[in-house]
Amino acid sequence: MIDPLIARAILDSFSSMGALTSMGASIGGLDDGFCEVRVPRSRTVTQQHGYFHGGIIGAVGDTAGGYAGNTKVMPARECLTVEYKINITSPADGESLIARARVVRTGRTLIVATVDMSVLRDHVEHQCALLQMTLFVVDRRTTPSSNV
Amino acid sequence: MIDPLIARAILDSFSSMGALTSMGASIGGLDDGFCEVRVPRSRTVTQQHGYFHGGIIGAVGDTAGGYAGNTKVMPARECLTVEYKINITSPADGESLIARARVVRTGRTLIVATVDMSVLRDHVEHQCALLQMTLFVVDRRTTPSSNV
Amino acid sequence: MIDPLIARAILDSFSSMGALTSMGASIGGLDDGFCEVRVPRSRTVTQQHGYFHGGIIGAVGDTAGGYAGNTKVMPARECLTVEYKINITSPADGESLIARARVVRTGRTLIVATVDMSVLRDHVEHQCALLQMTLFVVDRRTTPSSNV
Amino acid sequence: MIDPLIARAILDSFSSMGALTSMGASIGGLDDGFCEVRVPRSRTVTQQHGYFHGGIIGAVGDTAGGYAGNTKVMPARECLTVEYKINITSPADGESLIARARVVRTGRTLIVATVDMSVLRDHVEHQCALLQMTLFVVDRRTTPSSNV
Repeated sequence: MIDPLIARAILDSFSSMGALTSMGASIGGLDDGFCEVRVPRSRTVTQQHGYFHGGIIGAVGDTAGGYAGNTKVMPARECLTVEYKINITSPADGESLIARARVVRTGRTLIVATVDMSVLRDHVEHQCALLQMTLFVVDRRTTPSSNV
Repeated sequence: MIDPLIARAILDSFSSMGALTSMGASIGGLDDGFCEVRVPRSRTVTQQHGYFHGGIIGAVGDTAGGYAGNTKVMPARECLTVEYKINITSPADGESLIARARVVRTGRTLIVATVDMSVLRDHVEHQCALLQMTLFVVDRRTTPSSNV
Repeated sequence: MIDPLIARAILDSFSSMGALTSMGASIGGLDDGFCEVRVPRSRTVTQQHGYFHGGIIGAVGDTAGGYAGNTKVMPARECLTVEYKINITSPADGESLIARARVVRTGRTLIVATVDMSVLRDHVEHQCALLQMTLFVVDRRTTPSSNV
Repeated sequence: MIDPLIARAILDSFSSMGALTSMGASIGGLDDGFCEVRVPRSRTVTQQHGYFHGGIIGAVGDTAGGYAGNTKVMPARECLTVEYKINITSPADGESLIARARVVRTGRTLIVATVDMSVLRDHVEHQCALLQMTLFVVDRRTTPSSNV
């Protein structure tokens, strides 16, 4: 279960993020320490072979991880990405991309999340990537600055 | 200096990649083991504060690194991303995003590259991210498959 | 279940690795795609506060991940570390360090593994680190060389 | 140039770190935002082929990066490792291992460093690894705790 105020803050933030709405991304699920993001295949997210682009996979995973972190701190605070690392485990050949992020460690200022990513191909999920990341928690009114 | 055949193969590959052309990305420079990619700010690449989205920064860095690798192996072969890790070092607040990738290790099947990323703000470059990645070299006619 | 020939090859390899035997490391469990490594606290593995050293945690995690990969390919072949990334999630304050590695993707030449790490403190396990890595499979008779 | 008080604090911290002194590591150089660590080959730092163990390479790189960060904050504060990512670019076959760490971003609470690693073989340096890491700055009197 997740507080409706938190869910609202996350959905508002998500819908204001041009990079994601442009690629047709949507939030598929939210829970305490969990966020799922889904993206349908289109030419804005593919590479030369028609698969989801590795960089886009990272962008979607980063986003899911950030919002999983946000379920722990919004609406008063929010998460900024410090860093992430992604392994592309298989070509992302499918009709949609699914990122499921889980918080694995919640600190006062740092949150660690992992993200399992898969593509849906003919109604079956196939793992395509694995991501591990670090988030930094800031007050939400604070404009992010370079001095964290 | 770079072989014109390699440059041609890279530019052809780049222009066929919907994920990049959709965000207005272009190749700013190519050399042996080097590739620069530039992206102008627009709503398709920004997050809720109007900065370049952290995931997009990763996608652009991944792309630059991949093509830096391709300068070593194209046109007969090409690089697939195995994994990358990115640190966002400052909010990416600027008019354009610049990724400069350099190959630091070339093997028969694995290539390692690093990517320095910055934003151009009022004609001055400000570092915004640092990326380190591993690429896998495959024959170009081979359709990428999950069994590398 | 794991083939006794594979287990034998892993235990032989492990015991020949000075860096690990010097720190008192032992294999706590083996299964198909799984390896557990344990290390007791001693001055050879701690930092200035008496906790397990972050770099040692990485070394132990890397080792566990490598042998998890080896359960998939030994005795004819073996895994070399391409790269790993570790998050230290808590100070590693405890009597022993435990790394549990699982293979999450097995390819012909690349294997991806994740490693959960914890310390045992007063009979309770506390997560201290999370690692994600890439392994390269080589023929075992081959002396590792720089041209993979 | 580096403040003698900072150098003293770093050398004191280093010499209290059992994990490093046990492997014969020493500081080869210090400057503002820079630290070099050297380790001679011995059975406590090698793997089954007699090369420096990949995990030990990471441990030494992590240490060098941490002290490069410490040149920016000691003696009042110190750096804890949040995470690091290392690529092993060649088998580390040599008489000694050299890690040269440079701070690439200094924030109020987060520092990013990169580490170039090589082995000395017959008087010539050969690159063997590349590391990128994030450090967290804490007050030095503070006992590190799990709630950063």
